[in-house]
Amino acid sequence: MSSDVVALLRTELGDRVDTSPACLAAVRADKSGHGADGVPLAVVHAASVADVQAVMRVATATRTPVVPRGAGTGLAGGANTGGGEIALSLRGMDRLVEVRPDDLLAVVEPGIVNADLNALLEPHGVWWAPDPASRAISTVGGNIATGAGGLLCAKYGVVRDAVLGVDLVLADGRLLRLGHRSVKGVTGLDLTSLVIGSEGTLGVVVGATLKLRRLIAGERVTLTALFDGVRAAAVASAAVTASGIQPAIMELMDATSLAAVHRLLSLPAPPPGSAQLTIQTDGPVAADEARAIAQVLTEAGGRVSVAADDAEGEKLLAVRRAMHPAMETLGTALIEDVSVPRSALPDMFDEIARIERDFALVIPTVAHAGDGNLHPNFVFAGPDVPPVVWDAAEQLFHAALRLGGTLTGEHGIGVLKRRWLADELGDDQWKLQRDIARVFDPLGILNPGKVFAP
Amino acid sequence: MSSDVVALLRTELGDRVDTSPACLAAVRADKSGHGADGVPLAVVHAASVADVQAVMRVATATRTPVVPRGAGTGLAGGANTGGGEIALSLRGMDRLVEVRPDDLLAVVEPGIVNADLNALLEPHGVWWAPDPASRAISTVGGNIATGAGGLLCAKYGVVRDAVLGVDLVLADGRLLRLGHRSVKGVTGLDLTSLVIGSEGTLGVVVGATLKLRRLIAGERVTLTALFDGVRAAAVASAAVTASGIQPAIMELMDATSLAAVHRLLSLPAPPPGSAQLTIQTDGPVAADEARAIAQVLTEAGGRVSVAADDAEGEKLLAVRRAMHPAMETLGTALIEDVSVPRSALPDMFDEIARIERDFALVIPTVAHAGDGNLHPNFVFAGPDVPPVVWDAAEQLFHAALRLGGTLTGEHGIGVLKRRWLADELGDDQWKLQRDIARVFDPLGILNPGKVFAP
Ligand SMILES: Cc1cc2nc3c(=O)[nH]c(=O)nc-3n(C[C@H](O)[C@H](O)[C@H](O)COP(=O)(O)OP(=O)(O)OC[C@H]3O[C@@H](n4cnc5c(N)ncnc54)[C@H](O)[C@@H]3O)c2cc1C
Ligand SMILES: Cc1cc2nc3c(=O)[nH]c(=O)nc-3n(C[C@H](O)[C@H](O)[C@H](O)COP(=O)(O)OP(=O)(O)OC[C@H]3O[C@@H](n4cnc5c(N)ncnc54)[C@H](O)[C@@H]3O)c2cc1C
Repeated sequence: MSSDVVALLRTELGDRVDTSPACLAAVRADKSGHGADGVPLAVVHAASVADVQAVMRVATATRTPVVPRGAGTGLAGGANTGGGEIALSLRGMDRLVEVRPDDLLAVVEPGIVNADLNALLEPHGVWWAPDPASRAISTVGGNIATGAGGLLCAKYGVVRDAVLGVDLVLADGRLLRLGHRSVKGVTGLDLTSLVIGSEGTLGVVVGATLKLRRLIAGERVTLTALFDGVRAAAVASAAVTASGIQPAIMELMDATSLAAVHRLLSLPAPPPGSAQLTIQTDGPVAADEARAIAQVLTEAGGRVSVAADDAEGEKLLAVRRAMHPAMETLGTALIEDVSVPRSALPDMFDEIARIERDFALVIPTVAHAGDGNLHPNFVFAGPDVPPVVWDAAEQLFHAALRLGGTLTGEHGIGVLKRRWLADELGDDQWKLQRDIARVFDPLGILNPGKVFAP
Repeated sequence: MSSDVVALLRTELGDRVDTSPACLAAVRADKSGHGADGVPLAVVHAASVADVQAVMRVATATRTPVVPRGAGTGLAGGANTGGGEIALSLRGMDRLVEVRPDDLLAVVEPGIVNADLNALLEPHGVWWAPDPASRAISTVGGNIATGAGGLLCAKYGVVRDAVLGVDLVLADGRLLRLGHRSVKGVTGLDLTSLVIGSEGTLGVVVGATLKLRRLIAGERVTLTALFDGVRAAAVASAAVTASGIQPAIMELMDATSLAAVHRLLSLPAPPPGSAQLTIQTDGPVAADEARAIAQVLTEAGGRVSVAADDAEGEKLLAVRRAMHPAMETLGTALIEDVSVPRSALPDMFDEIARIERDFALVIPTVAHAGDGNLHPNFVFAGPDVPPVVWDAAEQLFHAALRLGGTLTGEHGIGVLKRRWLADELGDDQWKLQRDIARVFDPLGILNPGKVFAP
């Protein structure tokens, strides 16, 4: 039966069907550290929309599950492919099809890597704002499917703010064109928004019309501020937000994170217990804004230092960007992703401190402080998340929900958070959402077991 | 049977059920000029979420159609209520429940009028950006249900960019809370976005968490530029967009519109054939931007005049705002609402000129030029749209679609455009959208005959 499926795929797609053991092993996991059970049937390296349609027709005819896959950098297990499943890789469909600087739009294939796209856009004086820390390795299709955010998104928006339309292949192989090329439009239901963040459960994104921005003129100013503990840093970040100045970047690192990164990068150890804010302003009034922010931070008890130039600014940001590698030197890292209203950041850090005490765990945490999105890290030995970590994570989720926030600010539900989805949505909404997914995919063959699995 | 329904409503809702002939007559129409056939069963003036739930439970039990209604200022016939239907008015639920300037959010009931909300927000130093020209008379719930835009939205965003969450009562009376109070979040499907612009077909919006902005500091500069004809004005507006400066407002009036408004306001007649751009800049660099824009306009052949102060600026904008009254002095106006990519504005005006010639019609047109959204007006005698007008409108829709645009930039489909919905969506997407609506409303009692009616 499963050999029939592969034979059917081969008939349609020839050598774009890959069953090499190395490739089958690679698609079992993403970057979450979590892997699927069993060995996938095949990996199809789609080269065209027609290829994707062919795969979906075979899958529908044989009721075979299909897992769409970009670069596999996801942190929720969304692209993990297990036994009896086909991994449908969009990575090879990576063309920039059209750039229109006058209309601030670009048309792309889904497999283009975020940073490659921006390199191609730059000569046109435009960029696509979503900038996940994984931008050098993740695909635009994956960014759309997860609704990715990034460091700059408090000022310049997340993926949800940056897509005009999406071409979607349904479970049965039909192609839909959602959205339009005009910036405005309210014709019918906004299915483009529905697809953003749908994690491969509604259809396969085979093309997108992206909303661009003009490159930001003017300088960039980067500064850091050290605080006695994470709560003080969180209060200071809330004060910056409340001051009305919108930094381009405002990242927070708690004491454990900061110390771990300094160790990794062989920098002098920060003062014990110190948390840090790293802030960047940009645009025509960047210097004025940086000065005003420095004052807010100083008044909030921070020890501020301003980068002399861009190169020094990059070095300060490199500390934040080294968080993930630093955690990996300590063990296996489960990167959590709760988000709360900005004013609730200090309370959320109190909750994290409480959970650390209650579970006798250390939870190094960084945050996109400009938009209230925290990444608490659980570090442990070996491949499997210990039960105590899930117990602590559950407390984390419930605390975020109590504060008016959400389970996941940007990484998605995938497999790792599906247990808690109904805690946030409520049972009625959970069921409604699953029924909507069934309208797109009546047989339930698109990324089954992800997001809505009970 | 229908008297049973009213009796059941009265049992639940007492004197909030209104069957006075004047009230029943009023809800048959919105501001589109189009009215529904027959006399509605009742108007319910909901005062609470529980009221709305009670209405929907009665409606479900008796399979009675319900038409949610804000202020009835819609231009697509979406709130029109006909024979056998209940009009469910949210207008009385008009409280501002909570303002959080630190989190840039507000919680509101749906019936609050847009301008009233902003008056209440101003002392807190914040505002809700969507500013339909009807902001003094339309409700926030109606703005959400239509996905409204406005004059400022090219710079500050439409409703879609300004809502964090929605409380929705389903057809069967259950209450769902969609979205969250954090600015970021990708938990499950984005049903908040799906509800925006759904025109009462998915559920009744009974509350919303709005995303606010800080009041814009600095001055405002307003200027106008006269051009020899609308094409030249459209080319100039595209040149402004291409220059990279983002005006707060950029409105275009063609020669017929401009002349009609000048007549209405007893202003000196503009030079024959002249079209006009009205542009406003704001914020810390408003004056610099206005100077740069004036130069672009002059180079594009415009005769520029800059308002001396805010009062004069308001007078210039009042000309644009008088468009609707000016059309009403000429006859019944069908206000169309196509949207195209910004660079296609000149081509769209060429298409309008062609349609005027082909159908021997005059089509006075204004446009939110900053985002490519045009409002061509068809003016005729008597209450009913003549067939020739619909034929011409159809040409207009198809031209907008050919240019990569959409049937409706901000007013919605309602009853007036449902005939053309599948032309834009395609049959497959049309059916998919209707099936999604059925998940929310299996009996099809929520605003039936609107949007998805065949
Ligand atoms: C070091 C590191 C830093 C990171 N930083 C960030 C960050 O700052 N912000 C952030 O948001 N994320 C971040 N991530 C997570 C990850 O990079 C993002 O989720 C990214 O958007 C995934 O893109 P991908 O191409 O790798 O998708 P994959 O991992 O391949 O897939 C992710 C999900 O999308 C679906 N999918 C992928 N492509 C398609 C398609 N074409 N059609 C339909 N469904 C599809 C998959 O089925 C899966 O459910 C980070 C990851 C790493 C490893
Ligand atoms: C002079 C004038 C100028 C205008 N200018 C603009 C403009 O610049 N931009 C723009 O976008 N529109 C404009 N409009 C159109 C109109 O004002 C908007 O569509 C507005 O958003 C409608 O709000 P309302 O409260 O009047 O809704 P209604 O007309 O009462 O209803 C509109 C639709 O929304 C549904 N609805 C209303 N409330 C709810 C609710 N609580 N829950 C579920 N469904 C609901 C109704 O069923 C209907 O389908 C203008 C109208 C006029 C008369």
